[in-house]
Amino acid sequence: MLEIKGIAASAGVAIASAFRLEHPDYTIQRESVNDPQEELKRLDAALAKAQQELKAIKQRTEEQLGAKKAEIFESHLLILSDPELLDAVRDRIASEKVTAQYALDEASKQFISMFENMKSAYLRERAADMRDVTKRVLIHLLGLNYVNPADISEEVIVIAEDLTPSDTAQLNRQYVKGFTTNVGGRTSHSAIMARSLEIPAVVGTKEVMAQIQNGDTVIVDGLDGKVIVNPSAEVLEQYKQRRDQYLRQLEEWKKLKEVPTQSKDGIHVELAANIGTPNDVTGVLENGGEAVGLYRTEFLYMGRSELPSEDVQFNAYKTVLERMEGKPVVVRTLDIGGDKELPYLDLPKEMNPFLGFRAVRLCLERQDIFRTQLRALLRASIYGNLKIMFPMIATLDEFRQAKALLLEEKQKLVAEGVEISESIELGIMVEIPSTAVLADQFAREVDFFSIGTNDLIQYTMAADRMNERVAYLYQPYNPAILRLVKMVIDAAHREGRWVGMCGEMAGDATAIPLLLGLGLDEFSMSATSILPARSQIARLSKAEMEQLAAQAIGMQTAEQVVELVRDIGE
Amino acid sequence: MLEIKGIAASAGVAIASAFRLEHPDYTIQRESVNDPQEELKRLDAALAKAQQELKAIKQRTEEQLGAKKAEIFESHLLILSDPELLDAVRDRIASEKVTAQYALDEASKQFISMFENMKSAYLRERAADMRDVTKRVLIHLLGLNYVNPADISEEVIVIAEDLTPSDTAQLNRQYVKGFTTNVGGRTSHSAIMARSLEIPAVVGTKEVMAQIQNGDTVIVDGLDGKVIVNPSAEVLEQYKQRRDQYLRQLEEWKKLKEVPTQSKDGIHVELAANIGTPNDVTGVLENGGEAVGLYRTEFLYMGRSELPSEDVQFNAYKTVLERMEGKPVVVRTLDIGGDKELPYLDLPKEMNPFLGFRAVRLCLERQDIFRTQLRALLRASIYGNLKIMFPMIATLDEFRQAKALLLEEKQKLVAEGVEISESIELGIMVEIPSTAVLADQFAREVDFFSIGTNDLIQYTMAADRMNERVAYLYQPYNPAILRLVKMVIDAAHREGRWVGMCGEMAGDATAIPLLLGLGLDEFSMSATSILPARSQIARLSKAEMEQLAAQAIGMQTAEQVVELVRDIGE
Repeated sequence: MLEIKGIAASAGVAIASAFRLEHPDYTIQRESVNDPQEELKRLDAALAKAQQELKAIKQRTEEQLGAKKAEIFESHLLILSDPELLDAVRDRIASEKVTAQYALDEASKQFISMFENMKSAYLRERAADMRDVTKRVLIHLLGLNYVNPADISEEVIVIAEDLTPSDTAQLNRQYVKGFTTNVGGRTSHSAIMARSLEIPAVVGTKEVMAQIQNGDTVIVDGLDGKVIVNPSAEVLEQYKQRRDQYLRQLEEWKKLKEVPTQSKDGIHVELAANIGTPNDVTGVLENGGEAVGLYRTEFLYMGRSELPSEDVQFNAYKTVLERMEGKPVVVRTLDIGGDKELPYLDLPKEMNPFLGFRAVRLCLERQDIFRTQLRALLRASIYGNLKIMFPMIATLDEFRQAKALLLEEKQKLVAEGVEISESIELGIMVEIPSTAVLADQFAREVDFFSIGTNDLIQYTMAADRMNERVAYLYQPYNPAILRLVKMVIDAAHREGRWVGMCGEMAGDATAIPLLLGLGLDEFSMSATSILPARSQIARLSKAEMEQLAAQAIGMQTAEQVVELVRDIGE
Repeated sequence: MLEIKGIAASAGVAIASAFRLEHPDYTIQRESVNDPQEELKRLDAALAKAQQELKAIKQRTEEQLGAKKAEIFESHLLILSDPELLDAVRDRIASEKVTAQYALDEASKQFISMFENMKSAYLRERAADMRDVTKRVLIHLLGLNYVNPADISEEVIVIAEDLTPSDTAQLNRQYVKGFTTNVGGRTSHSAIMARSLEIPAVVGTKEVMAQIQNGDTVIVDGLDGKVIVNPSAEVLEQYKQRRDQYLRQLEEWKKLKEVPTQSKDGIHVELAANIGTPNDVTGVLENGGEAVGLYRTEFLYMGRSELPSEDVQFNAYKTVLERMEGKPVVVRTLDIGGDKELPYLDLPKEMNPFLGFRAVRLCLERQDIFRTQLRALLRASIYGNLKIMFPMIATLDEFRQAKALLLEEKQKLVAEGVEISESIELGIMVEIPSTAVLADQFAREVDFFSIGTNDLIQYTMAADRMNERVAYLYQPYNPAILRLVKMVIDAAHREGRWVGMCGEMAGDATAIPLLLGLGLDEFSMSATSILPARSQIARLSKAEMEQLAAQAIGMQTAEQVVELVRDIGE
């Protein structure tokens, strides 16, 4: 029995056999054949198998994650039947008398290099698709003993160095009971996906790939961030109980769906959800969300070859507002640039993208993009309870400029006779230290704050949250972070404004007692965290948490704060 | 007449003819020749000219900037006489009957590609040297009308897109009266070099290359950050007066060399200098520096192929301490990683190096490197008034770990019978927001703080200070920055600690009144800024500046703060 520590990335307990997800070696030597006809047949058979696989994955992705996420596999299917590619492969088999795998690999390389040299960043991205599809066919041609993650068909725990977005999207929830990786953190893409798929996961273990073999019995403890390999009968039994207990708890939580969120001493706070697409509203409602605390509009701009039109945006915003039926919907304007690229914008590479030209900084320069989004939002405002917030605000000037553009577009629309809600609240993300420190001045001009802890923590600690080597500095419980949160909340309340939080921290069981004590008004989190949070808050007295928070503010280290919270038994 | 605005990077006024520094087109076509002997002669002539140039540059660099900075040109001279390279070129001329330029270009490309493919990052860097030397010889072979910056021999203003460190190092102070560039900011390398060479400079103008032709009369106003092209007779006269006035002022300032720094109402503050090498102590003493407030030890580690030994370091530290004759010397332990690379350490590439694995983060992991430096410092401590500070401290844990290593090495040395000063003060750089916010806790454990504003500003505003597109967010006068500075100073004074500042801000005439008012104890700046700062402080009342600072803290924007300071007439 071996216990490996890691980062609890998605709650729950999973027990199953290990399945190592490794990408095989695709190196191919040139080999002549006597019978090209035979190679052509092998090619067709491999293509047919790949097509079958892709169709199945596409369908499953549609069911599990929605049509949008499945589009990528439609592109893959198109490549698989692309006459230009296939003719090139067949010609080569016939004329050069080489193996199908060699012919495919060579032809595909030519296309990839052609795509990579294209000026359009969008077309350059097609190179990655071509590479994926080629690999899929090569697996069959080479007879590789490789199971695509999408094709797993028995209950397993996936063990991997890392999971790419495409790996994660292909996981079949029915069979993949949990996963664990060597790298990654709580906010890495695979962790966020795991939470939305509700698969227990432990990431950043550093050693699961070295320590776990195929077929080992593995427990993924996504509650405590532990992975146990080949447990003793006793430990296995303990964890089965723990798993069942957690599942029973999930059932209990479901009962809180229609109950208002309230502390033990009767104080109401709002539990909201973070969403990326109109489809996500389903999860918000199923989990009893009282609001959308963060609608990330980036997804509207991604996976396309040009900017989304005003109407495309209008329809998305309208859908979310209507489906939320008058509950608050906080829409964050475009937060692109930095690590989040839009190929068609062709933004220059930056040395430190997290400290770069992104979000509102970009929107204030590219006013064409920004004004289109603002118009779409204003037009949609009458369909529900819209609040707008600007991301990455560092100075009052930036807020004033962004607000001025909004008012200009509003005037234009009114002049055009368009009806616009008169009660749109206007707020900002507080995710840059300067804005937290100057919150008293901002509070005079904004309607609300939403604290974005993912970025606020990385800037305050000067530690890239994606960089493993400084992961120890990503400290939500560092007293410095709590002090900044307190500054923001106190400043807002003095001016009669409300404060939300939409970073990972808002849904974290260790942070919730502190945030309640600091006076946070709205907690916005993954939809699946809402019910556990509601249950936790119902057991906490806000008055007691205020004392707890006051103590935490005076601590020296994050460890001391965590101990303090642990002592209250939550 | 045309006026172009930019960033004042180095004080003073310069007037001279424009010299556009442009790198020529080195594209070379293959060309056959009938007389290879002639080509061999041309090659030898070009090599001889290049050698002559390099020797002259090397000598001038030694005189102006010291032997260390001149070493690079010794490497270039070695390449110029490398038999392997030269044999390859000559063979190609003889056997292929091609021009000397084509043969050189081809042979050099082969060597460059070989270097670039080497595993050692140090050898990979040799590719850049080979490229530089090849260009120098090609200029002669191609008969290009290109004047190397090192060869300028009449009074000029250099106009450039940007100046690389190697460009700047080659500028001849005798003839280059000033320079102006399209890109760059106050803290870019060329700006720092300009200040240490005392050449007036205006950077980040965006348009000097488009607007200025060779031979235009140009005024570089490094006081106000303006460039004037082909001034009217009247304006030219004004600026000549201004230049003379500034030179007279420089003479006045020189008289303050031995005078203690004191405000109008008799409060003493310490004016210290930032240095990079023991040679820099000369400038500190010539400019009346009362201390070394920041000894950047990185330079000891740069430009070599392996880590500096304990003895090499010991000698450097001892020299600085001895030459400062008992005046305080604050040594910053190694701040490497991030943007500052050491080829022989082979650090992994990071997506956001400014938020990455650097400085004390790296030293706590690479204890071999850190312990060697600490031992060298401890051994040198008896030769003067040594204070040690750790860079990039984000948490108390990090400080405690670093301190524990220092104490361990001290115990070992004492056990070995080595004499060590008993009065070494131990401090930290405050350059990460979390540390500023938690300064009250740190103040209980450190002897002093030194605020590193260059980094503190970039993290607090979440804006890479090297990134032109977010340069508007690099705001030293933002009230949020002033509040953090105040938090640090107040927290330190409550515990009886002193606070210094070693970022660019400490020597800035607009910041000095505010910093004096906030209670800063030590101002550490470029040596050349010390006397103007002493003169300025003598005209300021600390009591009045306290009121000014209190007002500034309550402002909303950086612009308001600048106006406020301007109103007091400094």
